[in-house]
Amino acid sequence: MKATTTPMIGAELAKVFGHIERHQDAFVSRLLDYLKHPSISSDNIGMDEVAQLLVSMLKRMGFETRTIPTSGYPMVLGRWQHAPGAPTVLLYGHYDVQPADPLEAWISPPFEPAIRDGRVYARGAGDNKGQHFAQILAIESHLAVHGRLPCNVLFLLEGEEEIGSPHIADFVKANRDLLRSDLVVTADGPMHESGSPIITYGVRGVVSFELRARAANRDVHSGNLGGLVPNPIWTLVHLLATMKNADGQITIEGFDDDVSAPTDLERAAAARLPHDVEEVKRALGLTRLDSPSDRSVADRIMFHPTLTINGFHGGYGGPGLKTIVPHEAFVKCDARLVERQAPDDILRKIEAHVKKHAPEVEFVGLESTPPSRTPVDAPFSEIVQSAVRTAHRVEPLIYPSLGATLPDYAFTKILGTPSFVVPYANADEANHAPNENIRIDCFLKGVRTGAALLDGLGRSVWPKGL
Amino acid sequence: MKATTTPMIGAELAKVFGHIERHQDAFVSRLLDYLKHPSISSDNIGMDEVAQLLVSMLKRMGFETRTIPTSGYPMVLGRWQHAPGAPTVLLYGHYDVQPADPLEAWISPPFEPAIRDGRVYARGAGDNKGQHFAQILAIESHLAVHGRLPCNVLFLLEGEEEIGSPHIADFVKANRDLLRSDLVVTADGPMHESGSPIITYGVRGVVSFELRARAANRDVHSGNLGGLVPNPIWTLVHLLATMKNADGQITIEGFDDDVSAPTDLERAAAARLPHDVEEVKRALGLTRLDSPSDRSVADRIMFHPTLTINGFHGGYGGPGLKTIVPHEAFVKCDARLVERQAPDDILRKIEAHVKKHAPEVEFVGLESTPPSRTPVDAPFSEIVQSAVRTAHRVEPLIYPSLGATLPDYAFTKILGTPSFVVPYANADEANHAPNENIRIDCFLKGVRTGAALLDGLGRSVWPKGL
Repeated sequence: MKATTTPMIGAELAKVFGHIERHQDAFVSRLLDYLKHPSISSDNIGMDEVAQLLVSMLKRMGFETRTIPTSGYPMVLGRWQHAPGAPTVLLYGHYDVQPADPLEAWISPPFEPAIRDGRVYARGAGDNKGQHFAQILAIESHLAVHGRLPCNVLFLLEGEEEIGSPHIADFVKANRDLLRSDLVVTADGPMHESGSPIITYGVRGVVSFELRARAANRDVHSGNLGGLVPNPIWTLVHLLATMKNADGQITIEGFDDDVSAPTDLERAAAARLPHDVEEVKRALGLTRLDSPSDRSVADRIMFHPTLTINGFHGGYGGPGLKTIVPHEAFVKCDARLVERQAPDDILRKIEAHVKKHAPEVEFVGLESTPPSRTPVDAPFSEIVQSAVRTAHRVEPLIYPSLGATLPDYAFTKILGTPSFVVPYANADEANHAPNENIRIDCFLKGVRTGAALLDGLGRSVWPKGL
Repeated sequence: MKATTTPMIGAELAKVFGHIERHQDAFVSRLLDYLKHPSISSDNIGMDEVAQLLVSMLKRMGFETRTIPTSGYPMVLGRWQHAPGAPTVLLYGHYDVQPADPLEAWISPPFEPAIRDGRVYARGAGDNKGQHFAQILAIESHLAVHGRLPCNVLFLLEGEEEIGSPHIADFVKANRDLLRSDLVVTADGPMHESGSPIITYGVRGVVSFELRARAANRDVHSGNLGGLVPNPIWTLVHLLATMKNADGQITIEGFDDDVSAPTDLERAAAARLPHDVEEVKRALGLTRLDSPSDRSVADRIMFHPTLTINGFHGGYGGPGLKTIVPHEAFVKCDARLVERQAPDDILRKIEAHVKKHAPEVEFVGLESTPPSRTPVDAPFSEIVQSAVRTAHRVEPLIYPSLGATLPDYAFTKILGTPSFVVPYANADEANHAPNENIRIDCFLKGVRTGAALLDGLGRSVWPKGL
């Protein structure tokens, strides 16, 4: 954690910070109240109730608020648009949570929030209720102190993030005008394990597919008929070997065509990240990293696509041996994509490759999500960084990209809006796991970050030193 | 089935054939008696009783008979050695049978032999009691008519063939002198589905092995860590691709070194076999044969080794997708070997190949059996062929080799004795299956074949035209 010069805080923000400090116990207590309400999208538990709860919260702050139905759970949209000339920030979050199983592993029940050791324990504490509730409190604090917000705010809360955001893209496409904004900020995910705040500018995309091979209509004896009957496992092995070579280069024709190299700024930001390769190797029990061997960690997980075999199954798998030529086999794969690879184009290229090299193999495209990357020097980037710096009093780590997939592309690619992910939760928030939690200091720093962001956005067009 | 000129039958054999014809009902009735006794080696049911039954049968014919213990079930060895100067034939068979499950699929109970439509139905009817009992009756018929046998006979009956003959090689090694003979004849397996008798001169060998790969100590997220963490499935795919190429050539260094090409005689015999490729493709639903594409069926299943992946398992195999980098995977393989590939040498070469191309992959050698091939023009070959011709009145099909594994090598490689497999059972004997059966006409032709064989062997050294 790199200490930084304490930034100058304007008088207006200082008053908001004061308000936050005076109300911190009440804020935590209200967080506990919010976390009592389950909203498990995968099990359809409490979804409407929590959507209505959010509508009330936003309305109480004077937001023009409504739910917008999708073919799944509704989106909650709130709008405060009384700062003409100031930028509009779209704050994205999600009100659904993961199921709480296994219940017996929780020290306190998942929907009976408890405070222990400076943390709030409950399902959703970190992912994502604690984080978007911090945004709400930041707005509320500004309004309480100043009676107004320094910039325009759109609040978009989704109810399907934990089940893969199946409707976000169509929703954004259908509501471009409603969602018009200058930047998107998402408070989700964990900060760095060192405690450093981070800002993420992008994510890799993903395509998933399955390759299925069949030969005979049944397994046959490898002695009687071996040499005569084709083996679908060999077919898949030879096909796969044409898709990525032993040096780790993906060899599907055209696969890399649209890969855009990171900018100097992105490279420089990535180079400053504290990747501890030896610790990763130790924790995972690795003797080496994946091929190609000459790539930096950042290159591996941010700037290069991957082709991963998730599973390969065919033939006999029990103890001992069974001397058969198996008759069917399948492989499940995913490819992580980087800017500007387009999932549909990549799936077409993979399918064409399969057709060319193993026409008898069935290709089945599964899910896909485009990559997203907001330039490190995008508009408002410095304001987002400054807000984090102001709230945390340390320099944030800049992640040009993450390995994982998020629906970020809906904002960057469909709306064409820069998008920043600013996690408020501690690294050990245990999201998706028993005993999910958020550290109270992280939660309050989140409220401050949200407040500083609104303040910074207001200053960005208003005369300095107001 | 190719008709052949009826061979001249000598007076001595004609008398024996006459005896067989007169006693055929009694022979069938005695076969039913024998089949009543279960002898299931895998379940240790009735093994001693049937071994003792055989000892009595052989002793009653004047054979010097004993059981020889192994660390499994005993060998039954009978000897008639009163034809000085005449050759000695070792008749091999096995007195154990497969389990009878599923019992409910049997029309008549497996150990209550029944005659229907000219067939005897019972477990062991074809595999192998009906066949070695035919040999016993052939000997008995010679003795009944002539009071003596035309050649010397060793009878070796194993009790562990159905569990993989785990002790035959050591037994043969330890009892070379006892088993000294001029040829081995095994009546086992089915004739051709056209009804043609066949003689088999060899079998492929086999080695089995497993390749195991591990990388991380657990599955990891393919987005977060894909590109960083090695994938054991890719490791195995790339290793396997170095072992056999997409054209079907095995590319393990030295693998083919000891493959001896078939002789002209073997090629000619193989070319005469009625392989119906289109029928095999139709029955198995194949659109093509295995690579390489330019091989005859005989080349595929007799004269070339194979490298078969029996099973490949690693990572996610359930429905939908799971975007992981899996942490372990394994492959089970077998290689079918031809003369003169030695299993130990081949396993060493495969292991060396693995060490060279993927040192992190664990190689585990499993079972192995050497190949065996008796030349088509080996000593006594013509006599065996002539015996079949005499009994069946058609030309036998000559199989230089079979794809499947048999313990033939124990005779050819350890004793150095030519070995011939002469099946007596019908092609639809349903061995290892419910409703196992032997056609009564096949059984009686088997008795005649055995009788003609002894006669032919006697003539081979005695003056012709006795």
